Amino acid sequence: MENIHISRIEALRRRMAAEGIDAVIIPQADPHMSEYIAARWQARRWFSGFTGSAGDLVVTLSDALLWTDSRYFIQAAEQLAGSGITLMKDGLASTPSIPEYLLAHPGKNRTVALDAMLFSINAVDALSDALAAEGISLRTDFDAAEGLWTDRPGLPDAPLFIHKEEYAGESASAKLEAMRREAREARADAILFSALDEVAWLLNIRSSDVRYNPVAIGYLYVDAAPGGRARVFVSPAKLTPEVEEYLASQGVDVSPYDTLPDFLSRLPETSRVMVEAARTSGAVRDILGARAILAAKSPAAMPKACKNEIQLEGVRRAMIRDGVAMCRSLMEIEDRMAAGILTTEIDVDSILRRHRSLSPAFFEESFGTIAGYGPHGAIVHYEADEKSNAVLEPRGLLLIDSGAQYPDATTDLTRTICLGTPTPQERRDFTLVMKGHIALARMIFPDDTRGAQLDAIARQFLWREGLSYLHGTGHGVGQFLCCHEGPQSIRLNYVDTPLRPGMIISNEPGLYREGVHGIRCENLVLCTPAMTTEFGRFLRFETLTLCPFEPALFDTKIMTDDEIDWLNRYQARVRELLTPELDHATAAWLAEKTKPLSR
Amino acid sequence: MENIHISRIEALRRRMAAEGIDAVIIPQADPHMSEYIAARWQARRWFSGFTGSAGDLVVTLSDALLWTDSRYFIQAAEQLAGSGITLMKDGLASTPSIPEYLLAHPGKNRTVALDAMLFSINAVDALSDALAAEGISLRTDFDAAEGLWTDRPGLPDAPLFIHKEEYAGESASAKLEAMRREAREARADAILFSALDEVAWLLNIRSSDVRYNPVAIGYLYVDAAPGGRARVFVSPAKLTPEVEEYLASQGVDVSPYDTLPDFLSRLPETSRVMVEAARTSGAVRDILGARAILAAKSPAAMPKACKNEIQLEGVRRAMIRDGVAMCRSLMEIEDRMAAGILTTEIDVDSILRRHRSLSPAFFEESFGTIAGYGPHGAIVHYEADEKSNAVLEPRGLLLIDSGAQYPDATTDLTRTICLGTPTPQERRDFTLVMKGHIALARMIFPDDTRGAQLDAIARQFLWREGLSYLHGTGHGVGQFLCCHEGPQSIRLNYVDTPLRPGMIISNEPGLYREGVHGIRCENLVLCTPAMTTEFGRFLRFETLTLCPFEPALFDTKIMTDDEIDWLNRYQARVRELLTPELDHATAAWLAEKTKPLSR
Repeated sequence: MENIHISRIEALRRRMAAEGIDAVIIPQADPHMSEYIAARWQARRWFSGFTGSAGDLVVTLSDALLWTDSRYFIQAAEQLAGSGITLMKDGLASTPSIPEYLLAHPGKNRTVALDAMLFSINAVDALSDALAAEGISLRTDFDAAEGLWTDRPGLPDAPLFIHKEEYAGESASAKLEAMRREAREARADAILFSALDEVAWLLNIRSSDVRYNPVAIGYLYVDAAPGGRARVFVSPAKLTPEVEEYLASQGVDVSPYDTLPDFLSRLPETSRVMVEAARTSGAVRDILGARAILAAKSPAAMPKACKNEIQLEGVRRAMIRDGVAMCRSLMEIEDRMAAGILTTEIDVDSILRRHRSLSPAFFEESFGTIAGYGPHGAIVHYEADEKSNAVLEPRGLLLIDSGAQYPDATTDLTRTICLGTPTPQERRDFTLVMKGHIALARMIFPDDTRGAQLDAIARQFLWREGLSYLHGTGHGVGQFLCCHEGPQSIRLNYVDTPLRPGMIISNEPGLYREGVHGIRCENLVLCTPAMTTEFGRFLRFETLTLCPFEPALFDTKIMTDDEIDWLNRYQARVRELLTPELDHATAAWLAEKTKPLSR
Repeated sequence: MENIHISRIEALRRRMAAEGIDAVIIPQADPHMSEYIAARWQARRWFSGFTGSAGDLVVTLSDALLWTDSRYFIQAAEQLAGSGITLMKDGLASTPSIPEYLLAHPGKNRTVALDAMLFSINAVDALSDALAAEGISLRTDFDAAEGLWTDRPGLPDAPLFIHKEEYAGESASAKLEAMRREAREARADAILFSALDEVAWLLNIRSSDVRYNPVAIGYLYVDAAPGGRARVFVSPAKLTPEVEEYLASQGVDVSPYDTLPDFLSRLPETSRVMVEAARTSGAVRDILGARAILAAKSPAAMPKACKNEIQLEGVRRAMIRDGVAMCRSLMEIEDRMAAGILTTEIDVDSILRRHRSLSPAFFEESFGTIAGYGPHGAIVHYEADEKSNAVLEPRGLLLIDSGAQYPDATTDLTRTICLGTPTPQERRDFTLVMKGHIALARMIFPDDTRGAQLDAIARQFLWREGLSYLHGTGHGVGQFLCCHEGPQSIRLNYVDTPLRPGMIISNEPGLYREGVHGIRCENLVLCTPAMTTEFGRFLRFETLTLCPFEPALFDTKIMTDDEIDWLNRYQARVRELLTPELDHATAAWLAEKTKPLSR
């Protein structure tokens, strides 16, 4: 039986040949530059059969190639077998980039095509410049799946619901008014928001159009005049009378999702519309033409990142709820191991979901749970499947990275636990990671500090021994929104965003020994004022996550008094805040886990 | 008697009026963008009477204004009194920048003039763009002093001398050949070097045209053809037969300094000459026109910064010599205090110079000594003069920042000592600064780390108490060249230059309490490989400076075992390496100062 992907690509090539196109790029992307993509925009998967979350397909008249990164080399090789598609291993020195490949294979028409709906303005411009330099033209209106993918899913149409002001702490109308001020400051007549979390945050609405991120597929257009109107473009199927009434009360009109191009093209030629160049599609910019004002950063980015007091109250409440579920889950895993009940990595995921689901506030997970046992823990983006699913044995380390969406918070935490008596190497590795975690948690730093300035604080103890981890130390986190939220971060790469009070950020150093084990210790922390002196204002981190660290994994001989003191205070705080919510057995378990350590 | 500066400025205004110029900018600068400026280019001083090392004068037909920073507010106010020149306090929110001022005062001809010899390409372009946006034109060939400053000093003509290969570790011809490879890589036919330290480094020549930096005023043109010629443009008076012969042996021709414009203008129109945009004058670019290739960083920057093993041998030798002079100086200061001999800040400077001069290798100081007693220590760029010169009393802190030029090294160190029994506050402040110094000295970090990633390591203990310092933590240092040398640094601001083996950089955290005291602890460190593991190559710092820290100032109660251990090892190393070079009394003094500390 012929591989179905071969015939799909052949059908695409017939369209290409008919239209004089030499190559098509089919990315893993949606029109909103989202991290999680609805089924409607999974054309790369439909053409190639590859299901990974990152990777772009290039089809030429003679070849088909899929670029993906090291996380997916094995999976892609398996899924592409028999499809005739060549795997291009991104990140290897020997692998050309997509533009490099296209420049080397210009074809006879010297024409590359893509759908600019699926590329940011920055991405289209960079590609177009690179190709133009060699006389290759870029056609930006080519939807590869058109006419071929006959059973293509429609727009997601999960109902919209209101994110109540008791959680949001600020009305949509007030947020929109602030955006209008920003627009006028930039001499814009309006702002168009494409990023789904910004639309949701600005309007105080949520939905479940994609998994893990409770957003709605939509655009938001905000007129800059004081007290002006706003217009959200969403699928009409998503509306309820309650939501329609609510939106109207906030000065927001509603139009069908697919009427945006028409709406934008009818704006007066003199109108100036601000869009964020990194998160708005090239297609939208093409419609706006000279009306577009490209902004390097959305005016919603900083206010969304800096949570208000009401949001933070909700977050603190949710941390207790999530900590309770975590304690119950960790205890159940230990109990099963002690009773000799067969337990796998996938069981760990189910246990976490079951305990979180006990709370009516649980909405869904905030990302796919990573439960990596032993060597699997060293695969940073590991997600167990039926084939890889390991059985837990009474030895070694288990890394559990999980999180939940609640109406009052998005959580994300990682605990590394030992299933037997830990070895000296396991304790040493774990303690080196925790020394960095504690050093960052204890930092006090001046206003205006950038994340890249603090990153080494978390890495210094690993670096001293020639160890490191390749991911960032911290990412921003939304409130009942995206678990990965900008613009702040704590990482090696310099990002010109100051840490500001109200930002929530993860503190997650790790250490991964290939084929042995993986360790990560992750709490969410809140950036908050510490003091003001003659040297200015200083900030600190308040740790938000409430879940005990495994005491058996600490080697207190290599810890300072200050580090042990921080740990003991943290564990005591976890015990104090969670115990009132726990059944007797779990409370006893937690009391045992949080006993003070000493040397 | 009328202030002479009033009449000088009036004479300038007559020239301006005759030529239709509304405003002239007279900067503190030379054609090589140097830190220290020869007398010939001190026109700002000649017009204004202000002697500070930073500050630009603007003269309009009706006003004269001098912009300078907070270091010089008091001095400038005094020196400008009676001149009719308004002091513009740079850095205050209420002070417009020079472009802002010029835009607000365009004059009737809307014409601003300057001498583009004294502005970098980047500076001329930025100013020109800002003015052009408001329809103000910029004339770039106006030498304000021309025809007025009749006794203007000529070009410095100190003799050139050879920086021997036994110090440089690499021949000029080899360095030039490397530059030719860089030029060809950038598709350039030649490189023109304007930065004086690069000319000196590339040719292995030195001179004494300006104080503190042993450079020669000159340009270097390097033809990019393999084995091509180079041409240095210097005042003929600087040449000796030996140097001429030496330069010829390295493939270097010599032309008079002032023939550069003519030489450049005769280059073929198709020729491509690489210049560094930040350190080449706008005037040179104007001559080159379309022949100029602007580089963001000079190809000499990294090789000059990364010292070779022969250079480092010399540096280590010089550190012993400089440490001996420092020990003798510190002991003499203590002896004088004990004997009740009147000693002032200026005396401290003389004592240091006297002890350094005992070595025949001493060439000159590498910058003006800072000896700040008590509150003067809190003035970061303090230099004692007859008026400020404080008498040392048997109490309080004395900050001494000094350095020397030797043929084998440039040194720069700061010690803070106590003249009586230190107070708890003095010990605590000092120890917090030293904890940062030690943390940075002990760092191990991956290849490719930027200085901005390490800066917080030195500040963390101060930040924790709401304290900080406003200067950088570390600057690059040359070899028998500039004490402030790029491109590397360790500071809050992100600079995209990785730390690389062979770089010498200062480690100098501080703490300044206005009106009380200043503390700075500065050693030079060498960046050097530490280890290579499965996580890549790691680097560390080797401390080069050899001079004891004052033991009485440490509060070991707030130090960790690791910190005390580092300190005791450092002091022991200083003792071990310096004692063989010391007389009996100084050796005994050093033994006392370097006794191990404990809690």
